[in-house]
Amino acid sequence: MPRGGARGTSKGIPSATVSRLITYLRVLNGLEAGGVQRVSSDLLASEAQVSAFQVRKDLAYFGTFGTRGTGYTVSSLRDELKRILGLTRQWRVAIVGMGRLGQAIADYPGMSEFDFELVAAFDVDQRKVGRGYGTVLVRSLDELPAAVDELDIEIAFLTVPVKAAQVAADAVTKAGVKGILNFAPTVVSVPADVRVENVDFLAALKRLSYFLHEDAAEPEESPA
Amino acid sequence: MPRGGARGTSKGIPSATVSRLITYLRVLNGLEAGGVQRVSSDLLASEAQVSAFQVRKDLAYFGTFGTRGTGYTVSSLRDELKRILGLTRQWRVAIVGMGRLGQAIADYPGMSEFDFELVAAFDVDQRKVGRGYGTVLVRSLDELPAAVDELDIEIAFLTVPVKAAQVAADAVTKAGVKGILNFAPTVVSVPADVRVENVDFLAALKRLSYFLHEDAAEPEESPA
Repeated sequence: MPRGGARGTSKGIPSATVSRLITYLRVLNGLEAGGVQRVSSDLLASEAQVSAFQVRKDLAYFGTFGTRGTGYTVSSLRDELKRILGLTRQWRVAIVGMGRLGQAIADYPGMSEFDFELVAAFDVDQRKVGRGYGTVLVRSLDELPAAVDELDIEIAFLTVPVKAAQVAADAVTKAGVKGILNFAPTVVSVPADVRVENVDFLAALKRLSYFLHEDAAEPEESPA
Repeated sequence: MPRGGARGTSKGIPSATVSRLITYLRVLNGLEAGGVQRVSSDLLASEAQVSAFQVRKDLAYFGTFGTRGTGYTVSSLRDELKRILGLTRQWRVAIVGMGRLGQAIADYPGMSEFDFELVAAFDVDQRKVGRGYGTVLVRSLDELPAAVDELDIEIAFLTVPVKAAQVAADAVTKAGVKGILNFAPTVVSVPADVRVENVDFLAALKRLSYFLHEDAAEPEESPA
């Protein structure tokens, strides 16, 4: 069963670092919106809820941006992070599964602001076909292969039930889509040249459970 | 500005490990549902899309579960992971913000299956108050402090717009809630004894952008 490949990247940058770079970018956008021009690694670290050492280590993967003692120029660092993350171009996105979650995402005002353009939406339910959400009309899933070609769809959001997730993943990868954002709480198998990222709110909820549980527990010996 | 604390845990288990344990748990649940009784670290690793070395290293934090050569008993390992993750008890959950995302979550059939009980929902919009979603009726946000006491709410989902996220976080922490699952794409500040987990689909989308971008790029020299 071919899979989406290892968690690391070809440049050897850990996924966790990529996630933190995205957090730094979010912080930098906020600082810039607030008129802040320079930022220390201490402030960036505090806003991103990591250590200043971590910030400096993460940014060191990509060369040196800061000047010791004076920190980073907000706009330069933001532009550099956007370049590293591939966010200097638009990505063409389709939603597969127009239940409430698909509808909520289609209506989300921030998508285009973040360089993602919603170009199509699909559902198997013929009663939904032709309805408008956000900037798109719902199409029948049968139209997916033609639409991927016609609209140059690069990323598909899977907002389908668990039992439909693999079928939907197969349909979009067969149509030539190379990136999947999977919202169904299950692992989907894809060819090796396709990348899957999972948005699993139950996983985040379970992490929360772990930390609350741990806070409530008595201190105990670590296992040897 | 007090924060939710460092990313690590008091037992020194990295957050990334906790996330992988949750993935292993999901895989084990799937295997058990399929009637599989024993699993090798190779199979578990393949299903979780990590290396077998990673699996063995992660499980070693909690002592030794497996037997070399014969792997792990699916049900025992699953029970042990549930215990470690604090998933052997019910958590009482409220949703704050009953827009489409809040509604989608309230209707999500899998919540109670995963040991999370939805006990309340809140919105500032008086037109939504009294409507039913899933198992709950929407209450006015004014009722939050009384409801947290009365219903023993332990975890709040913030499904509000970015501009309302900090106010909502302040309201739930002031009412005594110690765990927040934040769906708004912004960092919220909380007292040190409150834990926040973020569900940020834009962050996952940006990770996807990074990996697709990287796959498309020419091989290049690493920065020194």
